[in-house]
Amino acid sequence: MAFRLTPHERGFYPLFTRAGENIATAADLLTKLVAAEPDARPDLARQVKEAEHAGDELTHEIMVKLNSSFITPFDREDIYRLASSLDDVVDDIEEAADRIVLYRLGALPAAMNVLVEVLQRAAAATAEAMPKLETMSQLREYWVHVNSLEDEGDGVYRVLLSELLCPPEGAAADVLAIIKTKEVVDILEAALDACETVANTVESIAIKEA
Amino acid sequence: MAFRLTPHERGFYPLFTRAGENIATAADLLTKLVAAEPDARPDLARQVKEAEHAGDELTHEIMVKLNSSFITPFDREDIYRLASSLDDVVDDIEEAADRIVLYRLGALPAAMNVLVEVLQRAAAATAEAMPKLETMSQLREYWVHVNSLEDEGDGVYRVLLSELLCPPEGAAADVLAIIKTKEVVDILEAALDACETVANTVESIAIKEA
Amino acid sequence: MAFRLTPHERGFYPLFTRAGENIATAADLLTKLVAAEPDARPDLARQVKEAEHAGDELTHEIMVKLNSSFITPFDREDIYRLASSLDDVVDDIEEAADRIVLYRLGALPAAMNVLVEVLQRAAAATAEAMPKLETMSQLREYWVHVNSLEDEGDGVYRVLLSELLCPPEGAAADVLAIIKTKEVVDILEAALDACETVANTVESIAIKEA
Repeated sequence: MAFRLTPHERGFYPLFTRAGENIATAADLLTKLVAAEPDARPDLARQVKEAEHAGDELTHEIMVKLNSSFITPFDREDIYRLASSLDDVVDDIEEAADRIVLYRLGALPAAMNVLVEVLQRAAAATAEAMPKLETMSQLREYWVHVNSLEDEGDGVYRVLLSELLCPPEGAAADVLAIIKTKEVVDILEAALDACETVANTVESIAIKEA
Repeated sequence: MAFRLTPHERGFYPLFTRAGENIATAADLLTKLVAAEPDARPDLARQVKEAEHAGDELTHEIMVKLNSSFITPFDREDIYRLASSLDDVVDDIEEAADRIVLYRLGALPAAMNVLVEVLQRAAAATAEAMPKLETMSQLREYWVHVNSLEDEGDGVYRVLLSELLCPPEGAAADVLAIIKTKEVVDILEAALDACETVANTVESIAIKEA
Repeated sequence: MAFRLTPHERGFYPLFTRAGENIATAADLLTKLVAAEPDARPDLARQVKEAEHAGDELTHEIMVKLNSSFITPFDREDIYRLASSLDDVVDDIEEAADRIVLYRLGALPAAMNVLVEVLQRAAAATAEAMPKLETMSQLREYWVHVNSLEDEGDGVYRVLLSELLCPPEGAAADVLAIIKTKEVVDILEAALDACETVANTVESIAIKEA
């Protein structure tokens, strides 16, 4: 179409790109954190916290721009949903990192590392997709990919739940440790769900533009 | 009013009708599952999973239609909320069925069967109401009914919480079993809440049309 | 601008003012409840329940007005979000009060009283802010204040989690009591989050009006 957005309205795109990169940074740090020795975790959690602050500022900038722009590159509700769900991903990642340190968790279940790696891949896919919003090209493979990662993560999540809550009969269960680990696992699953919400919102925007 | 929707825009109604029927199917299967012997549950959980997949496809069809329709029979946000909350009901039902099987729960508390029956009635009421969206007739009794079922379910839910978490003093508590059962109970309560959100959205649509 | 709302459309303001006052009432009652002897709590919980019913009716009135008004003082989605999040605050406060009584919790952790006081201050700030929606004046300090209370509450919340879930080694842990107390603490944190959502929505409305 001949209609062109002014630079001001185009200003949403770099913000989404930076929010995507920020998610990838946070997920990379979390991947390091769950693989690290307990002593090395607090410093990594502090770096995740910084990413969360950066994400908050980006979200705030997007919302202010949304509320003060007369014209937006796509539906206001879609911009709102996209910014909110990107923010949710970083919030969840930060909360998972924080709880691991706060609860002084020791060795983590191997499947938790796998779940974090699935999340890391979903975050990387999100970061790659955001710059494509401006041209709306090659986005289909992104949302299909994230949906399949969410499925993959759901399988790992169920294994984790079963391992945690159904220990072999006769084994002594440290119930407090189980409760704390399950809380982290639930937050990781929520982070992956939020990645899927980002992808679904992008799909919804792409369909309207088509 | 003289304005008429084209067949294309009317296409939302059959999708909502099918989504309603799908909820009733899933709730019927869950009712059977909680009443069944543990050995018979995995097969029923697989059938619930199929209903969830069918629900996902219906939700996706509604969203694609929403995003590609210039004219919609009611507010876009209402269609979005209605489709999302119908999807939440089936997702919750599926998650409850899955957890019961995954956690290999044995005998379930009697009040849990009662809670599932309340959910089943709410799902049946939802299925009956969806075909009435096209004419917007006789919907008031539906949303009043679902709101009162949600109240009834809340009472049963509180009894379950109290039974689970406040066992008689001196009784040996299997804390892991309590945690697993409570998770299922919380999911059932969320499913009933989602039925209420569907009803509230229908009320909101009806008021705008009046 | 010369454009003026009719009394009908202005009718939203008194409803938001009353919803704000209702939140402050509920939070005051909860503060008394957590400080009271267990015997005195059920009566206070009944009063909180009444506030929740009053809040439900206000929310319903706002939604009906929203759906039947052609002109609204600010964006329909913002009115929807503001009413929903105000409702969430009271719902959470009621749920916390109810669980404390239902679970027959005895002495509560000192930090829980601190968390409830932070919530009470956020509720009071919300009640003070609602009447200013009509003139949109002096609202900035409100949302900045609530955001900083949410931060303060988050610190207290983390202390509570650590105290509850990381008891000194060798101490006998009553895991069921920990689970019940943590549930209440999580609900209080959600109430404070809902106060922040109210504040963020007000900020978003104010930016559009500027």
